[in-house]
Amino acid sequence: MSPENSVGLVTPQRVRFDTPLTLKSGAVLPGFELAYESYGTLNADRSNAVLVCHALAGSHHVAGFYADDRENIGWWDNLVGPGKPLDTHRFFVIGVNNLGGCYGSTGPLSIKPETGKRYGADFPLVTVEDWVAAQARLADHLGIDTWAAVLGGSLGGMQALEWSLQFPDRIRHAMVIASAPKLSAQNIAFNEVARQAIISDPDFHGGHYAEHGVLPTRGLRLARMVGHITYLSDSQMAEKFGRQLRHGEHKFSYDVDFEIESYLRYQGNKFAAFFDANTYLMMTKALDYFDPAYAYAGHLPSALARAKARFFVASFSTDWRFAPARSREIVFALLQNGLRVVYAEIDCDAGHDSFLLDDQHYHALLRAYLENIAV
Amino acid sequence: MSPENSVGLVTPQRVRFDTPLTLKSGAVLPGFELAYESYGTLNADRSNAVLVCHALAGSHHVAGFYADDRENIGWWDNLVGPGKPLDTHRFFVIGVNNLGGCYGSTGPLSIKPETGKRYGADFPLVTVEDWVAAQARLADHLGIDTWAAVLGGSLGGMQALEWSLQFPDRIRHAMVIASAPKLSAQNIAFNEVARQAIISDPDFHGGHYAEHGVLPTRGLRLARMVGHITYLSDSQMAEKFGRQLRHGEHKFSYDVDFEIESYLRYQGNKFAAFFDANTYLMMTKALDYFDPAYAYAGHLPSALARAKARFFVASFSTDWRFAPARSREIVFALLQNGLRVVYAEIDCDAGHDSFLLDDQHYHALLRAYLENIAV
Repeated sequence: MSPENSVGLVTPQRVRFDTPLTLKSGAVLPGFELAYESYGTLNADRSNAVLVCHALAGSHHVAGFYADDRENIGWWDNLVGPGKPLDTHRFFVIGVNNLGGCYGSTGPLSIKPETGKRYGADFPLVTVEDWVAAQARLADHLGIDTWAAVLGGSLGGMQALEWSLQFPDRIRHAMVIASAPKLSAQNIAFNEVARQAIISDPDFHGGHYAEHGVLPTRGLRLARMVGHITYLSDSQMAEKFGRQLRHGEHKFSYDVDFEIESYLRYQGNKFAAFFDANTYLMMTKALDYFDPAYAYAGHLPSALARAKARFFVASFSTDWRFAPARSREIVFALLQNGLRVVYAEIDCDAGHDSFLLDDQHYHALLRAYLENIAV
Repeated sequence: MSPENSVGLVTPQRVRFDTPLTLKSGAVLPGFELAYESYGTLNADRSNAVLVCHALAGSHHVAGFYADDRENIGWWDNLVGPGKPLDTHRFFVIGVNNLGGCYGSTGPLSIKPETGKRYGADFPLVTVEDWVAAQARLADHLGIDTWAAVLGGSLGGMQALEWSLQFPDRIRHAMVIASAPKLSAQNIAFNEVARQAIISDPDFHGGHYAEHGVLPTRGLRLARMVGHITYLSDSQMAEKFGRQLRHGEHKFSYDVDFEIESYLRYQGNKFAAFFDANTYLMMTKALDYFDPAYAYAGHLPSALARAKARFFVASFSTDWRFAPARSREIVFALLQNGLRVVYAEIDCDAGHDSFLLDDQHYHALLRAYLENIAV
């Protein structure tokens, strides 16, 4: 990474909110903290702020690196920086760890004031709506009345869409990438397998593993493995791994035979070593529950009628988790409301994870769209 | 079930083979038993025998029911019976539990002669090739020199294909349904998740759970859940379950919210209550390993050059586990060898499991093809 196109050293910040937050479930959080990072400078008009929302396993660390951990580069660093498509010369970019996360915001790993112990399974389920409500408090704190744009991929895209519905006057552009207006039965089914893997791990202890001094890493590992399959495309897996053998021959055992097995085990182990199981469970539920049309008898155009933002919607040809057809549902509903929307279906072999890559056409589109946002 | 179209009461049989069988892995089974059933009557010419090969969780109980368990109807009863597409008035039909199975054939649940204990994890890995070799012994025992047809769906279709290669002169028609010439990386990935779910279950004990008096039901349950998702189509799941709520509202807990969750848990629990984990592991490995083109540098037409049978190949439009393109690979390779092949791509909403259903067009095709097999 050269100094010209990196935001460079960044320092995460935390802010505490002491006004109670009533969650969609009815539970009330008496107060909470959010971890966030910012890149670029808020202009005098406060008109150049962009919120980047993270997906299932993401965090507030969107770009740059840390002084004490220079290898820990932000998850969307290829997009955000000086001269990059989301140009920090022009925009003031915020990354935030969602409420319930495990990277510093208040969540299951936090100490519950009443007990002096970690919340664990006692942390209430939070939803996409709750995340946006919490992010709005952060915007208030930062003096940002209106976001120039809110953007995100996958679950992050759902937050961008929700911003346009919950705070139609506080968002000028909603950028919804590799997302869907709600999960399909198959999407929920994969999430349920992941949850059951965690919950049925004997080390889960009903979510109170911290008190038992153990971690449900077996379950978390399986959850990540099955999730990972759905992030990649069949064709990309075929190209990257195919039927390549790890040891040049069939082992006739349950050790690794094929490279794809090795890859999945590695991804599962890596993830299980640091991610919090309760947060993972909650994130999958937030995905399952998101359904703005639910209150409108399933009619998405009615649900989106209150949006005022302009929209950028993008999908990827080989994404079978949130296939292009799911993005088109959003586009059609927006158009039925006479809203302005740019829609791109991008040919990219990398499946759902394409939104994280710097595919040339994809980034050119993002750059062109973002350049046209007035600040 | 009316008496006219059921094979009625059936009685499983067992046969023991005492000549050692050298498996593809190099391991030698000193002897083994196979459980099988037969329906219809072998004709004087012994020319009307049909072998039905089972898939991952199947058994020799293909049709009819048992005197002491009349609800236990064979898994392909809709296909096999008097007047049905595989007509037991004309054909002598054999169902066999594969070597390594858990329904009566020698497998991990059997007693290892040397130790007097169950084989458990000591049972050697068997392959599709080994199954066919074992089935050939059954054919010898029954006095069947040549099968009129060998048929099966999914993993069963791989056995039908393997019969045409290992014993080209002993099979007149190979009927390969909802199958593939080898697994893709994605197919292997799903199998690996299932295996890791079982192997990482603390009750697995390296496959020797029987000695510990426990069963790795948690792992087996997860394995079945993830497998089940791949057996159904996205569209069928949407139609059958969609986002239907079990209790009419979001529970904001990890209990069942959506009907699809309830369904998957039910399927997982049901399966884990009776299926043997070591057999499941082995079956997935047999799937992963099957690759007749492997010895021909990946060139399938070369691998199929020794086949002499006529082929019936069928795939289903919504099967994403073994998509139509996978069947077409087989068809093209057969055609390049000048072999006769009937190929059907059937519009059916039920995904991979379509091969088990009595879809009208599918069964009409099977009936027409089978009626034209001379006996």
